Amino acid sequence: MPTAAELVDRLTLEVPDFPEPGVLFRDLTPTLADADGLRTITDELVAAFAGRFDLVAGIEARGFLLGAAAAYAAGTGVVAVRKAGKLPPNTLVEHYELEYGVAALEIRAGQLAPGTRVLVLDDVLATGGTVDATCTLLERAGAVVTGVGVVLELADLGGRARLSGREVHAVRTV
Amino acid sequence: MPTAAELVDRLTLEVPDFPEPGVLFRDLTPTLADADGLRTITDELVAAFAGRFDLVAGIEARGFLLGAAAAYAAGTGVVAVRKAGKLPPNTLVEHYELEYGVAALEIRAGQLAPGTRVLVLDDVLATGGTVDATCTLLERAGAVVTGVGVVLELADLGGRARLSGREVHAVRTV
Repeated sequence: MPTAAELVDRLTLEVPDFPEPGVLFRDLTPTLADADGLRTITDELVAAFAGRFDLVAGIEARGFLLGAAAAYAAGTGVVAVRKAGKLPPNTLVEHYELEYGVAALEIRAGQLAPGTRVLVLDDVLATGGTVDATCTLLERAGAVVTGVGVVLELADLGGRARLSGREVHAVRTV
Repeated sequence: MPTAAELVDRLTLEVPDFPEPGVLFRDLTPTLADADGLRTITDELVAAFAGRFDLVAGIEARGFLLGAAAAYAAGTGVVAVRKAGKLPPNTLVEHYELEYGVAALEIRAGQLAPGTRVLVLDDVLATGGTVDATCTLLERAGAVVTGVGVVLELADLGGRARLSGREVHAVRTV
């Protein structure tokens, strides 16, 4: 039985020059469309933080796939961390900087009981900007962030350093 | 133990005049953030089509949450049906009409083995335009659509009639 990391290597599609020239895009779509891929990745992410979270946060949009699967597997709910403008009022908003411009993430205000232990999941850890903003947003909402789980960590982009002090589990690091 | 429908009634947030005046928005976020809500909804959707699908399709973005949870529960993979422009080439695209303008959905080309039986999941069935386009797209890709599962069906908007001939299961109809 292949491990989750082996399935990521085998099934993930590398697409040169997407979304712009010089960028190697890694498409995890086929990995999650594979029954063994989805199961082994989900189980590994849940096991890495087992018993230490009450809720899973999935970051829009691909993080929703991992967040919901992990929440179901662990017997918790899933909170959707959305791009700004998708949720009805009232929300908590966290702005953060991208390479070009600014983005924002939102959750519903009043959604989290104080001290709720939240596992943050996303597909890829690159510079860490989105994940960092998500953790800050959840903590502003009263949560305790247990840690961060991703399928693929792009080590050269420095995401782990940016999340310094947080526990990060990557199924595969390249 | 409350049923999935009871949890939808109890936990779903009704927001008047969002995203525009006169529209009553139903926010399922708190329902899926609840452990019992996520589990009972997922289990009901899987049970309604048990043994009759090989893959689950989740429609971006909220359908990703249901699609991934159901796929994990059923032991299948999940295919992400994305809004146009998010996936790298090559893709299959399906355009469809909205009340104002046109939208498009995409999946990766060559992703589905011919005859793959796919369960289509989304959060809300309203006019059925998005779900209908998703089914057409999957069938163009060679899949057989087993049926459509949603958490909430807004009966007045005619989605079920538009999907005439398809099996539709709604956890709750209002």
